[in-house]
Amino acid sequence: MSQTSPPIFADILAAAARIAPHAHVTPVLRSRSLDELAGAHLHFKCENFQRMGAFKFRGACNAVWSLSDAEAAAGVVTHSSGNHGAALALAAHTRGIAAHVVVPAGAVAVKIAAIKAYGATVHECAPTMAARDAMAAELQTKLGARLVHPFTDPAVIAGQGTAALELLKQAGELDIVLTPVGGGGLIGGTAIAVAGIAVDTHVLGAEPEGAADAYESLRRGERVTDLKADTVSDGLRGVIGEINFDLLRAHRVEVLLVSDAETLAAMRLIWSRLKILAEPSAATALAAVLRHRERFAGRRVGLIVSGGNADLEQLLR
Amino acid sequence: MSQTSPPIFADILAAAARIAPHAHVTPVLRSRSLDELAGAHLHFKCENFQRMGAFKFRGACNAVWSLSDAEAAAGVVTHSSGNHGAALALAAHTRGIAAHVVVPAGAVAVKIAAIKAYGATVHECAPTMAARDAMAAELQTKLGARLVHPFTDPAVIAGQGTAALELLKQAGELDIVLTPVGGGGLIGGTAIAVAGIAVDTHVLGAEPEGAADAYESLRRGERVTDLKADTVSDGLRGVIGEINFDLLRAHRVEVLLVSDAETLAAMRLIWSRLKILAEPSAATALAAVLRHRERFAGRRVGLIVSGGNADLEQLLR
Repeated sequence: MSQTSPPIFADILAAAARIAPHAHVTPVLRSRSLDELAGAHLHFKCENFQRMGAFKFRGACNAVWSLSDAEAAAGVVTHSSGNHGAALALAAHTRGIAAHVVVPAGAVAVKIAAIKAYGATVHECAPTMAARDAMAAELQTKLGARLVHPFTDPAVIAGQGTAALELLKQAGELDIVLTPVGGGGLIGGTAIAVAGIAVDTHVLGAEPEGAADAYESLRRGERVTDLKADTVSDGLRGVIGEINFDLLRAHRVEVLLVSDAETLAAMRLIWSRLKILAEPSAATALAAVLRHRERFAGRRVGLIVSGGNADLEQLLR
Repeated sequence: MSQTSPPIFADILAAAARIAPHAHVTPVLRSRSLDELAGAHLHFKCENFQRMGAFKFRGACNAVWSLSDAEAAAGVVTHSSGNHGAALALAAHTRGIAAHVVVPAGAVAVKIAAIKAYGATVHECAPTMAARDAMAAELQTKLGARLVHPFTDPAVIAGQGTAALELLKQAGELDIVLTPVGGGGLIGGTAIAVAGIAVDTHVLGAEPEGAADAYESLRRGERVTDLKADTVSDGLRGVIGEINFDLLRAHRVEVLLVSDAETLAAMRLIWSRLKILAEPSAATALAAVLRHRERFAGRRVGLIVSGGNADLEQLLR
């Protein structure tokens, strides 16, 4: 699989086999009260129960275990506002190799702590995509380590697609699969997975109004990279990748916008009705269902609850 | 089974069969990081995933389905600061009978809303045990409805014991089973269940320092009923019942105290590490493990996470 061409369905099946010894098969939860509230049949794929608390472990694990022994020996490097960094750190730990994570200043403290706890080396940089890319490239050159990009790496995209693969096996036929959209690794992998097994199932994305780059890119027909992200969904601040944007277009994925207030209300609903922790980014999918009710009425909907690494210091009194 | 003699192990087995069509078999979760933190092997029995969000459904369901058709026709009545009221409301709903719930002023809003949502009639009274008893007795006389006491009713105690029964099946041998202690329905049923299948397993209770009536009762050798409860664990403010106190003594159950600060810290740990919602009362068990580390070191411990109906309005910013 080349670094520049997108993964295909076979890559997702291979990823599922590759990560099986390391990743959890996460449960699918349902709620009568949320079904009533939404007027739809909701199936929540609980990636908050994934190792390190987010789907990101799937992609990182696939990338790390896709390396040859020689490549792996030099370690891996990435930049991440949080979950991907922790995921790569843990994935590297499962293979016993070094991980270096570039983290922008201002990232969620609990996520940085997780990266360090898994044994990776943290390098802080300025909070811009350019600074992140530059420092990651520098480390890559200096150490010979393999760069595992959080959402454009094809092995990462293939790994993220395994969540939808499991969901479709667990939930049976679905009319719609809905995921949060940040850089586009999850929605890209999901689109490939769904197209491979359930051609009649639509894939939709949920994106914060304050980080609407994927929505705007699809609307304008070209990738928009100059929006400044401002959203409570800290996992969705990244700009949609080139390869990811191509996947959205190829699979005719539509993106629905949600406000931060809608996201936080949906997060509380998930906490109180499902009794699980979901981070704000993960709640965008339910927020989209509740905002765009007519799109989901009476449908069987799969929602990927992308992670549970909520910053409790910030959210609790 | 008489209203005044405690249940025996056979009653718990019968309760398990009786509630099986209505109650969930809840999962047992584990966490490497919490095991490391505690220095013990922790098995969390997740009654927050029980119907209506707490173990209380087990006891209420057993009580409601133990009634003859003639008894059931007159409905049921109870008093409860929250979870038992909602549990009885839902249990009555599963049998299609009326439920009346006496609720003390100042009870958690989300729990009162749940009682009403399940179709029960709510009657508000002064926030004292005497006022609760009086109004419940009045309704009982007026309506001919069966009083289902939240923790002294033997059918309720037997139902609560089914959680430990499941836990022991799911987790295998345990050295200790630990539950929160309020009125004593859960710990009483747990003691009977554990004695019936795992004679070498110790049963311990966790009680807030601000509602230490069970602890004080055991220490003094007589039931203490004049303490004023002041604790964040709203489910544990009830005074240990007579029948429940007798069960604690008969089964040599020991009660460990925890502070509210320890409870809230343990609650955050459960939220952030297990990615599940636990209400403060439910976190007292983990708080006890972390405060009394030497009692649990290296042991296989089952903790009953009693409920997930946390008052998010109050806890979140």
